[in-house]
Amino acid sequence: MSLKEEIQNIGRRARKAALQMARIETAVKNQALMRMADSLLASRETLRGENEKDLNSAREKKLSHAMIDRLTLGDSAVKEMANGLREVANLADPVGEVVRMWKRPNGLQVGRVRIPLGVIGIVYESRPNVTVDAAGLCLKSGNAVILRGGSEAIHSNRAISAILQSALKEKGLPIDAVQLIPRIEREAVYEMLCLEDSIDVIIPRGGEELIRFVVENSKIPVIKHYKGVCHIYVDENADLKMAEKICINAKVQRPGVCNAMETLLVHEGVASRFLPRIYKSLEEKGVELRGCPRALEALPHIRAAGPDDWGREYLELILSVKVVSNIDEAIEHIETYGSMHTDAIITASYERAQKFLKDVNSSCVFVNASTRFSDGQQLGLGAEIGISTTKLHAFGPMGLEELTTTKFIAYGDGQIRE
Amino acid sequence: MSLKEEIQNIGRRARKAALQMARIETAVKNQALMRMADSLLASRETLRGENEKDLNSAREKKLSHAMIDRLTLGDSAVKEMANGLREVANLADPVGEVVRMWKRPNGLQVGRVRIPLGVIGIVYESRPNVTVDAAGLCLKSGNAVILRGGSEAIHSNRAISAILQSALKEKGLPIDAVQLIPRIEREAVYEMLCLEDSIDVIIPRGGEELIRFVVENSKIPVIKHYKGVCHIYVDENADLKMAEKICINAKVQRPGVCNAMETLLVHEGVASRFLPRIYKSLEEKGVELRGCPRALEALPHIRAAGPDDWGREYLELILSVKVVSNIDEAIEHIETYGSMHTDAIITASYERAQKFLKDVNSSCVFVNASTRFSDGQQLGLGAEIGISTTKLHAFGPMGLEELTTTKFIAYGDGQIRE
Repeated sequence: MSLKEEIQNIGRRARKAALQMARIETAVKNQALMRMADSLLASRETLRGENEKDLNSAREKKLSHAMIDRLTLGDSAVKEMANGLREVANLADPVGEVVRMWKRPNGLQVGRVRIPLGVIGIVYESRPNVTVDAAGLCLKSGNAVILRGGSEAIHSNRAISAILQSALKEKGLPIDAVQLIPRIEREAVYEMLCLEDSIDVIIPRGGEELIRFVVENSKIPVIKHYKGVCHIYVDENADLKMAEKICINAKVQRPGVCNAMETLLVHEGVASRFLPRIYKSLEEKGVELRGCPRALEALPHIRAAGPDDWGREYLELILSVKVVSNIDEAIEHIETYGSMHTDAIITASYERAQKFLKDVNSSCVFVNASTRFSDGQQLGLGAEIGISTTKLHAFGPMGLEELTTTKFIAYGDGQIRE
Repeated sequence: MSLKEEIQNIGRRARKAALQMARIETAVKNQALMRMADSLLASRETLRGENEKDLNSAREKKLSHAMIDRLTLGDSAVKEMANGLREVANLADPVGEVVRMWKRPNGLQVGRVRIPLGVIGIVYESRPNVTVDAAGLCLKSGNAVILRGGSEAIHSNRAISAILQSALKEKGLPIDAVQLIPRIEREAVYEMLCLEDSIDVIIPRGGEELIRFVVENSKIPVIKHYKGVCHIYVDENADLKMAEKICINAKVQRPGVCNAMETLLVHEGVASRFLPRIYKSLEEKGVELRGCPRALEALPHIRAAGPDDWGREYLELILSVKVVSNIDEAIEHIETYGSMHTDAIITASYERAQKFLKDVNSSCVFVNASTRFSDGQQLGLGAEIGISTTKLHAFGPMGLEELTTTKFIAYGDGQIRE
């Protein structure tokens, strides 16, 4: 069997499993999720052994410390994965929910009912925990999933997916509802992206390069975000103490993630007071500031920002700073350089809070809160399968509901169209 | 300026107009819609003249009578277009609606607010009324639209879009919110489908060939349906009088549209009673029946259905008929041969009604009602921009709401992430 045929078979089996999964009762899905959690914990030894193979070749290939860190499946990582599955079991099942129902003048009762999307394809990089998280969310939402993790985690992922499949089997669910592409060739991803008849949506998770590869090669719709260039705009009459606290949190608490702040916009009326203050706190945390000419007036000792600094996702302890004349300039800057991810305003003005919420076109727009809340768990979706910064189907953090769609149903008693 | 540059300019202007349109108040949008309606009526003479040019070349090219009919812009067609715009003005504005709002344990108030998609691309065939209908719906939902009608309607479409643009201008709205691709070359469509940075979604409207061309060449997400192969399943204990009335309506009332019935499935327990009865009524209306071997037992004089008859969209007075042993066989037949458009069951059984609604994966699933209700207007969406038979973003008839998405907003009072 060729690689192409092998991948096509995986797709066909997933499509068949998806039809079954759409009909499975909530309780059975939850039992399978709990069983998966138990099995993962019971298989820590096996997982450690398989993970060791991946770690060995990672060390041989001299992968970075950060990558090896992400790859490592210690006891605490396994425990976290199991807990994640249990949390998903406790979430409400979106499938079957009647979103709305109304009556037509002819007596026809029309409604929209939530149904699974079908088959979800996940393409991701080294973290083996994505295998578990994504499988859990897709299962709970009644979908089948095809997983394609990074080649460097292949032994770990194979071991995990075998555990998940045996839990499915034990609970009478189709094992093809969770399938891993077991091949490490990049060509396998390419073949997966051609399965337009078998896969309904592709969600890539990883760096910008991976996502571009997926978008360029996929014949299947892709839900994605390339990067997060998040802004905070400190307005003229912001509570500067609050602004400071939020800016530090947004920049420093976890600088390597997509919802960390990358650019600070400050109203000219408070720049001379706020900038020296925030500079001091950020410098203590090791943050490098890069300023526009007007920011340099208040902070003459920082580095000047170059044209490349606007719209740049540093993902480290660097922050670009720009002084703006008013909220319109702030919004225009975000429109020009932002990534439609998450942007926040700090203000005491009711009017400007409302204006910012209305006019900023990002998937998450916050008032007086840290950009770090842009996350499915934090916003109350229960869990997150990914983030979308394009508007079709989903915009912003995606939870269980975003793995579903609705169909129309109608209860009639003989209605015909006149 | 090359064709490519010309199309790219249209895209850039649309993107800019979309940003403005997203912020326009409902009342202003409604005034523009009403103005458009008035202007169309006032310009009947001009429209007739331009339409005559299209009709002349259509006659020269010896286009079919049906095509010339669709192309003709008589007074009643113009009146209908104007009425359509007024109806859209009367619909609720989806933009700005807070779909849901909830409070997090840390006090953060999180909500989802409806916003426009941005720029919608419509690719369609001869009917010039689509120019008006699509422009009205996109305008009301705060989007900009790029229209590409059939080359055979180019004079009519140019005249219509000039009228629509001048109404926009009169009401202070950006004229680039409604743009027509003024070129007849097919290459222009191709260039339009490459504007992934300027257009958010493409909605093709027309025959299967057009839609396949769009899907194969588009770099932009496409919302589409290829065809409607609608089934009605007459269950064992259906009210046969009701079944007859609905089947005749679904097949005969307008056979050339996508929500007309193409295949009738009949439970074996009622086949010998129902088939002769429905045959008689359908024959009177000029419908040709094509039956499976078991249907031929009840109707020995009809033509035998070939393998090509299942899953076929006749769009004319032909109906394939199959006798099934039970509801499972009916659902499996729909699963195999259906097009995920619209399928209905006629039954008096509560249990089987619920089973059919749950297990049939089509975008519209009806009980005891004609498939002909699968239409935005009929289902109560107010109007229809198109139908989707794929599950991403929208599934089934699409109204104003489907031309929007939601963004997350959050009202905080200093929340930071721990």
